[in-house]
Amino acid sequence: MQCPAARGLERVGEWWSILILRDALHGLSRFDEFQESLGIAPNMLTRRLNSLVEAGLLSRHRYSERPPRYEYRLTDRGRDFRSVFLALLAWGNRHFTPDGKSVLIADKKTGAVVDPVLVDRATGRELSERDFEFVPGPAANQRTRKRLALAAQPPPMATEEGRPASQRRRKRRGTRHA
Amino acid sequence: MQCPAARGLERVGEWWSILILRDALHGLSRFDEFQESLGIAPNMLTRRLNSLVEAGLLSRHRYSERPPRYEYRLTDRGRDFRSVFLALLAWGNRHFTPDGKSVLIADKKTGAVVDPVLVDRATGRELSERDFEFVPGPAANQRTRKRLALAAQPPPMATEEGRPASQRRRKRRGTRHA
Repeated sequence: MQCPAARGLERVGEWWSILILRDALHGLSRFDEFQESLGIAPNMLTRRLNSLVEAGLLSRHRYSERPPRYEYRLTDRGRDFRSVFLALLAWGNRHFTPDGKSVLIADKKTGAVVDPVLVDRATGRELSERDFEFVPGPAANQRTRKRLALAAQPPPMATEEGRPASQRRRKRRGTRHA
Repeated sequence: MQCPAARGLERVGEWWSILILRDALHGLSRFDEFQESLGIAPNMLTRRLNSLVEAGLLSRHRYSERPPRYEYRLTDRGRDFRSVFLALLAWGNRHFTPDGKSVLIADKKTGAVVDPVLVDRATGRELSERDFEFVPGPAANQRTRKRLALAAQPPPMATEEGRPASQRRRKRRGTRHA
């Protein structure tokens, strides 16, 4: 698939892989540490670690000769997954913590808990749906362009009931098949 | 699992679900629109849509009585997944587009392409690993606290080869089992 989000997902592979990356971002590196944290079967952990190495998100290093033992370190690409993880963590905290928050992000110096928000690096403006849209890039193929043509129609604000998509059906169809 | 990121993942369920949410964020709502975009088997699409409705990310609405036809609208919770999707898209664009970028995020008015970055909403500071850390929240259980104790040790800067975790092993062990 051409979508960069889909390509990123392909490299991460499975939920377990995201949790391995989470633990790696927290500082874990050895096989037994991942296993203790995740409670995952050794053969599955081996498979996921190898997959993350192949995808270039972790690199494998021997830290003991006898017996041979390896540790797994984040590459630049793996460490950069931190932004995705933070966004996922913030979303989970907003919606799936009926019993209170268990993990927060805090300023190391002051201990102040922060509320993560995605902004445009150049202007600092929040990347709200109202002001920003998805657009085809220079490498977009026809399928991608077609899908993104829909995004050009700004959807109305969401409500608990969902947005009234049916009310704007006719207008959108016009754009889609133009 | 207590980790809010893991809980969020549970609700999303599968890669296909993330791509369905992507399409919903782009404005798609009808079964045939999702099918056309994703090229997914109808029974699998039905299953994923139902799962997203159960998780409270989409809501189902009848738009035709005869024949009965439904559309799927993002709930507030589903629409809020946009931040995770944007972070994933940006990561994918940075690392998995050797043939050029196919999807970008742009200012609707000016068309300027933006570089998404996660910052603290209150101060606007980038949530870099150097300045911010994961900390246990009020609802953290012992397992979560143990895992996060590792994060308190700031890992050195990443390199293409990965970070030299073995060199700080002894110090970290001391903290971990303290």
